Parts: sequence; structure tokens; C-alpha cells
Amino acid sequence: MTTPLDVWNCFQAVRERGPLVHNITNYVSMDLAANALLAAGASPVMAHAREEAADFARIADAVVLNIGTLSPHWVDAMHVAADVAAERGIPWVLDPVGVGATPYRTKTAIDLLDRRPAVVRGNASEILALAGAAEGGKGVDSAHESADAVDAARELAGRTGAVVAVTGASDVVTDGATTLTVQGGHPMMSRITALGCAASALTGAFTAVNPGQLLTATTAALAVLGVAGERAATDSPGPGTLRWRILDELYTMDQRVVTVGVRLPEGGSQ
Amino acid sequence: MTTPLDVWNCFQAVRERGPLVHNITNYVSMDLAANALLAAGASPVMAHAREEAADFARIADAVVLNIGTLSPHWVDAMHVAADVAAERGIPWVLDPVGVGATPYRTKTAIDLLDRRPAVVRGNASEILALAGAAEGGKGVDSAHESADAVDAARELAGRTGAVVAVTGASDVVTDGATTLTVQGGHPMMSRITALGCAASALTGAFTAVNPGQLLTATTAALAVLGVAGERAATDSPGPGTLRWRILDELYTMDQRVVTVGVRLPEGGSQ
Amino acid sequence: MTTPLDVWNCFQAVRERGPLVHNITNYVSMDLAANALLAAGASPVMAHAREEAADFARIADAVVLNIGTLSPHWVDAMHVAADVAAERGIPWVLDPVGVGATPYRTKTAIDLLDRRPAVVRGNASEILALAGAAEGGKGVDSAHESADAVDAARELAGRTGAVVAVTGASDVVTDGATTLTVQGGHPMMSRITALGCAASALTGAFTAVNPGQLLTATTAALAVLGVAGERAATDSPGPGTLRWRILDELYTMDQRVVTVGVRLPEGGSQ
Repeated sequence: MTTPLDVWNCFQAVRERGPLVHNITNYVSMDLAANALLAAGASPVMAHAREEAADFARIADAVVLNIGTLSPHWVDAMHVAADVAAERGIPWVLDPVGVGATPYRTKTAIDLLDRRPAVVRGNASEILALAGAAEGGKGVDSAHESADAVDAARELAGRTGAVVAVTGASDVVTDGATTLTVQGGHPMMSRITALGCAASALTGAFTAVNPGQLLTATTAALAVLGVAGERAATDSPGPGTLRWRILDELYTMDQRVVTVGVRLPEGGSQ
Repeated sequence: MTTPLDVWNCFQAVRERGPLVHNITNYVSMDLAANALLAAGASPVMAHAREEAADFARIADAVVLNIGTLSPHWVDAMHVAADVAAERGIPWVLDPVGVGATPYRTKTAIDLLDRRPAVVRGNASEILALAGAAEGGKGVDSAHESADAVDAARELAGRTGAVVAVTGASDVVTDGATTLTVQGGHPMMSRITALGCAASALTGAFTAVNPGQLLTATTAALAVLGVAGERAATDSPGPGTLRWRILDELYTMDQRVVTVGVRLPEGGSQ
Repeated sequence: MTTPLDVWNCFQAVRERGPLVHNITNYVSMDLAANALLAAGASPVMAHAREEAADFARIADAVVLNIGTLSPHWVDAMHVAADVAAERGIPWVLDPVGVGATPYRTKTAIDLLDRRPAVVRGNASEILALAGAAEGGKGVDSAHESADAVDAARELAGRTGAVVAVTGASDVVTDGATTLTVQGGHPMMSRITALGCAASALTGAFTAVNPGQLLTATTAALAVLGVAGERAATDSPGPGTLRWRILDELYTMDQRVVTVGVRLPEGGSQ
């Protein structure tokens, strides 16, 4: 069982060790992902050139690959980074943004999935599409609830060996055998772009410094972001302010805030 | 005549129907454009690859093409997306950032104009340059007032069949026959990058869900953004805060705020 | 000697003349750099295409080249822009992000250095790497204090003729003969991405309008940003808020705020 104290301990490890997270991510979320990593105590590298992807993956503690804004030469660099991460045994996180929306995107996601990510994080539509349980999807928004995708997530986790996280109004994290639920966040978070990508980036940081605990570390990353969002929403008049106040909370949260704020319902462990 | 209630009705349609807006836009404004669309109730897709431009344009309710940060392969994708939009009869918006500043930029804008956008939105310098009424321009800032470009905008609208919007301290929107003026906003908005691009993105959303009302829907998009900016400026100590507070306002504005706040001077309808 | 009044005068020149700064910079920092330039009174152009790099460099008052997120065709455009700036005698600023972290990045930085930047701005690790005084570096964070890099900066300045700025908890600026120290800022600034890049962009604006005063203008740009950060930090609950409040301060600062806030310790002039 994962407890709020486990979440705190995973977060503490990020702050203490400051993992270097190499991101090849989309143009829209790059800025927020880098700032979320910094606010949480990690060190971001954002670099996409084929010419240096292997070099950065070699010095990184985790790799995060996000297909939000694709180009062929970016995909080449993602393959290189994923392969180096696999060779070195560091975790790499796949964020299959919009998979199912276009054939190019689906092919790219499947090719990356073959390279054995440690964690896959997406919304319900993306996980359903990736698992082959659904086709299409309306762009990058989620047209499904997380709960709909639980079976697909379990199947995907079982088949690939990855921890699969489905984020939404509540989050579900599974390794195929154990499935955890994270509650928290705020509805206004769905009106901000790039928060999902920031969640993937944080998952890279949390899994990097909590080896052997992929399921717990992934859950912790999402739980911490949820508490930050929930707290930030209390004094944010709208999504524009909320977007940046979340980073303030990530930066300032202490043990009490985290352990009191995290909600991991028992009924959610199945 | 377009009234404040028309503006509200156009906005309501965006919130109710949540149009999917496919943007191929510049790196600088992508983030703000996506967040403005989300705050207003629309769904953004930001995707530029030639490999999937047609697929996204096929499922979108509107396409927005912005030439702020050009590359040849992005231009190819813009052509594809514009052609699909034209085929499908969905509106597409051209934002000719910096047209006139370099030959490459001017050629790109003209090639896109040939593909028949539903709306062209730019600042006065850009509209003057695009209309051939002026040459050059100092980068992407406007060196002219909107009023200077009214004749050029009317001529451009008449020649191309597009609604042409000139934004600045006040905005002018014309279809060649009818010309409307929108007052509002705040001088500090000129010290924030990407607001013009956000205006174009919102125009895509507003025209998508108000078919047959291109002039009104474009006016509504600019009017709503103007009210949001004006309101946000009242408690923003500077442009950094203002940039995000505008999104809060877009998200929270109700009918009363919109209808009281919108200023469409009668003398402006010519 | 550079005084707080010199800093103010350099800043005033930016606000009065509104220099056009052509940036070829990284995806992560583009947005903040453009907004920082606007908040300070300058005009940003962000454009990277080989097809128009020379044209923009020809109308710009300064060029800023930042290697944060590299691609081969971006490097080509950087060479063109640097060469045009050199021909025209306008200042160009090199921001060698992450130099030393990968061979590709180091080669790119060295090739640009050969094109004679007016100013080089980096953190201590980057300046050490660039000067050949150190190798490697952990991504784009600084693993060294600015003071460690003073000798390397002096050597680099002497060898290349550039003013070299090392930014960190305190900043050091040298032309090889004279070395100035700037104190200010706030530790939370290290948890925000792209502030260094914004410093480089501002340096472009400040040097553009203060010809013949490279050392003073560079010092002034860093000092103004430091005061803005220090002031913004007093009411920012965390780095997310701080990031945007800094722009508010850049926009609103007056002579009194600047001359009282700037700290240029005499002992720092060596």
C-alpha cells in the first residue's frame, strides 16, 4: 500500500538529490515542464537534437518523451534517448499526447512503446487508444473519464511491463497487478494546457530517485501535483493565475502539507 | 449592427460547443494561444508536422495559421491545413505576423492569402503591408495606428472575400462593406507578446461555432479579449501579471460583464 | 566606475529608443525573453529561419543568439545573423547554454565564439567550459559559483575582445581589464527557467542603445534584472508567481527604485 508518508518520502528524495531529467517534449509544455521540475527541486534539460540526444540521455537520471508537437527529426532523437535510457537502466516516461488522433501520432507512440518505457502517462482517451481498446479521440483533450480506462491501463501495463498512469479528475496508476487511485486537483486544472506534460516530467524526476518503486513514485508525483493544484486553486481567480500558483505550491510544500493533503482512497487500491 | 448581446451570444456558443481549433502557430505564442482557447471554453490542438496536418484539419472546427516563427516545413503544413479547411468549408484564420519585414515572410503570407482565409487578423503595419498599401515594417510591432489601415483593410477584404481585422489601441473589423470598431483593452497589453496571436486563435474558435456570421464572430472574439484585458488591468501591477490575469477573466466572464463591458461605438460602424 | 546612475541612464535609453532585438533563442525561453524585452521597453523579434535571418539582422539594433535548444538549421541561421551583426557593427550577444554538456553543444558555441560576439553571458559552469578552464557540466544548471569563473571570464574576455558576464547568486562582468560585480536578485530566481536567457536578451537591448559602453551597458542590464527580481520576490509566494512579477517590476521601475536598488560593491571592481 502507498501512504501519504510514502508520497512525502519520494518527494523528499527529489529535493535532496535534484535529479537531472532529460525531456524531449512539445513546444507548448516545455516551459511549464521545465519550471515544474525546477520548482519541485529537479534539474531539467530540454534538448531535442539528434546530434546530442544520446549524450544528454547518458548524463540524465531520467528521460521523458512527449509526442505533443511531433516532427520526424524529433522522433529520431526520441528513439535514441529511449534506447540509451533502456541500456543504462534509468527510467523513461512516455507521454503519448493525442495518440489515436492521427495515424502519424499513433505510429510514433507505438514505436516508442516498443522501446519499453518505465512509465506511460496519458489521459483516458490516450490510454484507451494506446491500449487498442479505443480508436480516435478528439485531439488532446480527454473525452473519457479515467475510470473508463482502468481496464485498458491494466492490460497495457501487464503486456508491456510499464507502470501506466491515467490522469483526469482523479488519477489511476497501475502496474497490472496493483492499481492505486489518487484524488485531488481541481476542475480548473483541465482548462490549463501542459499540466499533463508537467505531470509526466515530474514522474521522470520522482522515478529517477526512487528506484525499485516505480508504482509508488509515479503515484507520488501525481499526488503531489494534485495537492499543489488543489491548494493553488483556493486563491486563484481563474486558470491563468492557477497555472503559476501551482509552481509556488510545488516549491513551498512541506511534510505536513503533503501528508495531510494527499488522498489515496483505500477503495482505490484494487 | 453588432451589439454587446451578439458578442455574448457568440461567446456562449464557444463555451457550449467547445470547438476544436487546430493551430499551426509560432513558438512564442503557442502557450498563450492554447491557454486562451482553453480559458474561453474551446479545445486547442497545436501540431505542425506535414505528416499529420491534414488529419488534424479534418477533425478540427477551425484552423488558425500564424507565421510568427517560420520554417519551410511548417509552411508546407500550413498549406495542407489551409487547403483541407477550404475543402471542408470550415473557417481558417491567417495571422500574418511581421509580413513586410522580410521577403520570405511576405511571400509566405501572400501564398497563404491565395488559399482564401475566412479571416485575416493583424496589426496596422501588417495589414498595410499585406494589402500592398505599405512596405516594410519594424518587425512584429505595429508602427501604425489601426485607423491608418482601415482603407487597406477594406480593400483587402473586398479583394479576397475575407473578413479583415486590424487590432491595436482600438480594433477595426471589416468585410469590405461593413466596418466595425471595437474599443477596449489597455495600453499595457501592447507590452505583452502573443496577445495578437491569442486574438487570432480566439477568432478561430468564435467563427467556428457561429457560421454565417464571420464579421460578428470576429468582432465578438476581439471584443471579449478587450474586456478581459481591461478588467485584468485594473488589478495587475504590470504586464507580467496582466498576461495571465486576462485568462482568468476569459474564464470567469458572465453575460453581465460582457454586455456591460463591450464597447462598439456606433460611429465606428461605417 | 559604473554607478547606479549609469545603470539608470542605460535603462532610460532602452525605454526611450525601444531597440529592435533579433533573437534566435531556445524554445523554453523564447516567451519570457520576448516579454522581458517588451516589459523593459524594447521590441523583440524571434525568428530563426535561415531564409530570413540576414534580413532581420539587417534591421535589428542587436542580435542575441542562444543555443539552449539546438538544431542544425537553427545553427546555420545563427551564423548568418552573427555575420550580419558583425558586418553592421551592431552588438551581438552569445548565450552558450549548456556548453560543455555535449560535444555538439560545445562545437556550436566555439563556432559562434569565432564570430566575435560583443558580449558572452553564461553561468559559471558555462563560462568555465567555454574558456577551456573546465570540462563538462551538469546540463544547464550551474554547478559552480560565479566567483570560481572570474579568472576564466577575464581570460576569455582578453582573448576574444568580448565582454564576458557570469551570472549567478552574484554576477561578474569583465572586459578583461576591468571587472565589476553586481549583487542582487533572490535565491528563488534559480528555480525559474529562462531567466538567464532573459538576461541575455536584455543585454542585447542595453548594449544596442549604449554604444561604446559595452561593459557598463551589460552591467546595467544585469543590475536592473537583479533589482526587479529582488523586488518581485518580496511579494511572490514562490517561483511561479515570481517569474511574472519580475516583468511587472521591469515595466514599472523608476529612477529612484533603480538607483536605490542597484548594488555594485566597490570591492567588486578589481
